[in-house]
Amino acid sequence: MKYLRIVSSQTKSEGSYGILKGDIIHLLSDPPLSAHSNVTDITCALDEVKKFLPPIQSPNIIALGLNYTEHANESKMDLPSAPIIFLKTTSALTGHLQPIILPSEAPSEVDYEAELTIVIGKSAKNISENEAFDYIFGYTCGNDVSARDCQLRLDKQWARGKSFDTFASVGPIIETELNPSNLNVQCLLNGNIMQNGSTSDLIFNVPQIVSYLSRQMTLLPGTLIMTGTPPGVGFVREPPVFLKPNDRVEVKIEGIGTLENSVIAED
Amino acid sequence: MKYLRIVSSQTKSEGSYGILKGDIIHLLSDPPLSAHSNVTDITCALDEVKKFLPPIQSPNIIALGLNYTEHANESKMDLPSAPIIFLKTTSALTGHLQPIILPSEAPSEVDYEAELTIVIGKSAKNISENEAFDYIFGYTCGNDVSARDCQLRLDKQWARGKSFDTFASVGPIIETELNPSNLNVQCLLNGNIMQNGSTSDLIFNVPQIVSYLSRQMTLLPGTLIMTGTPPGVGFVREPPVFLKPNDRVEVKIEGIGTLENSVIAED
Repeated sequence: MKYLRIVSSQTKSEGSYGILKGDIIHLLSDPPLSAHSNVTDITCALDEVKKFLPPIQSPNIIALGLNYTEHANESKMDLPSAPIIFLKTTSALTGHLQPIILPSEAPSEVDYEAELTIVIGKSAKNISENEAFDYIFGYTCGNDVSARDCQLRLDKQWARGKSFDTFASVGPIIETELNPSNLNVQCLLNGNIMQNGSTSDLIFNVPQIVSYLSRQMTLLPGTLIMTGTPPGVGFVREPPVFLKPNDRVEVKIEGIGTLENSVIAED
Repeated sequence: MKYLRIVSSQTKSEGSYGILKGDIIHLLSDPPLSAHSNVTDITCALDEVKKFLPPIQSPNIIALGLNYTEHANESKMDLPSAPIIFLKTTSALTGHLQPIILPSEAPSEVDYEAELTIVIGKSAKNISENEAFDYIFGYTCGNDVSARDCQLRLDKQWARGKSFDTFASVGPIIETELNPSNLNVQCLLNGNIMQNGSTSDLIFNVPQIVSYLSRQMTLLPGTLIMTGTPPGVGFVREPPVFLKPNDRVEVKIEGIGTLENSVIAED
């Protein structure tokens, strides 16, 4: 199933959840993880959508650093022996076709990171790798946008550089029927392929990530887990490539689709 | 006003919000930040409370590191020129008289941090220091519990060591009528004063913190901001002091009250 959340003339102004079948969205009565969620008889064509919202309401966004060997190498960092965890604020969430905003506080070194993003479906604590898929609702495309100056030079922690508004772009759909073990993950900037990898190259794979994290904390329903980014990010290039106004960034993940955002400067 | 959230025989099983007047809790129809929140005619005596819950539902927990001069000195860290920001997961929240759990993954170096905790009342973006108080709902007691081995030796980021379940204890009340500029903040361990400071010694004070953070990100209603801890944490003592099963930790903040938690090992 392909879940999404949209605003259209058929929805409330704050948007509604729906299921995409072909080009038609069948609206849901309640969020997909709610016990009361039913398919209504209200539909909306995909080309009638006015706004794509993040496809789930998330209590936390957990992200992994350096989870592809080649990205760890290009970042000149040692390979991690356990997942490197950091957090992004939920205020950073944005959706498909919404702008990524270069923040006035740190507009100059904003970078893209295409990431397979796990959506947790039910509360997960101390679960094994074998059980992990029972707790996963589905997968979406994520862009772990990062202000490299804050992350790598100015701040002691990555939190701020990863949490400016619009720095967690996700969507447009959550695909619930997907084997995440060998998916092509790409980032395109203005149509040019900048990142290109496969989830088969993840240092810690999806069940290992979910099991590990569930031993550190309770993964609440709706939690987003950004699984790390393949090689090709902007800051390691020579010369470095950073996002600038009017850029167009796409995260393409095999079996899920394409998350596209334009780039604008903060007012 | 003193807001809290409790479970009692008068509430739903998942708890209700209320206002404390004297020793009587007047239950609210809806969460305090909801537009529909009204005082009901249902009351509950304070000594009838079965469980104290975190007094607000929070979209994010933002915390400041090294925000008291003496704590920066005792930690052998340079004084920060801008607030040091890190994040805790909302899954770490727990309430007054609930246990702090020493996690099986890192039970040995769990430390307390008493902190004045700001509760944001309405969405705040790019606000000035002069406007900051208009966006603050109130203040509560917070214990920014920290696994020092994870935070300082094992991990590259503080996120995991600050986010084990029960590592964000807050409550019991949110006090909305309080001048936060000169409040005594204490942590007591088994009745002994371990931390003792005043918010007048904050390097970045409350309006500076809210204004600064609002320039980095939108502070959503209900956001908790832990403002940093005064000197006396356990890991810098000789010998170091860490929490162990059956310990009792109290965070006492002048004008707010006392947040108490016992300590247990994970099952």
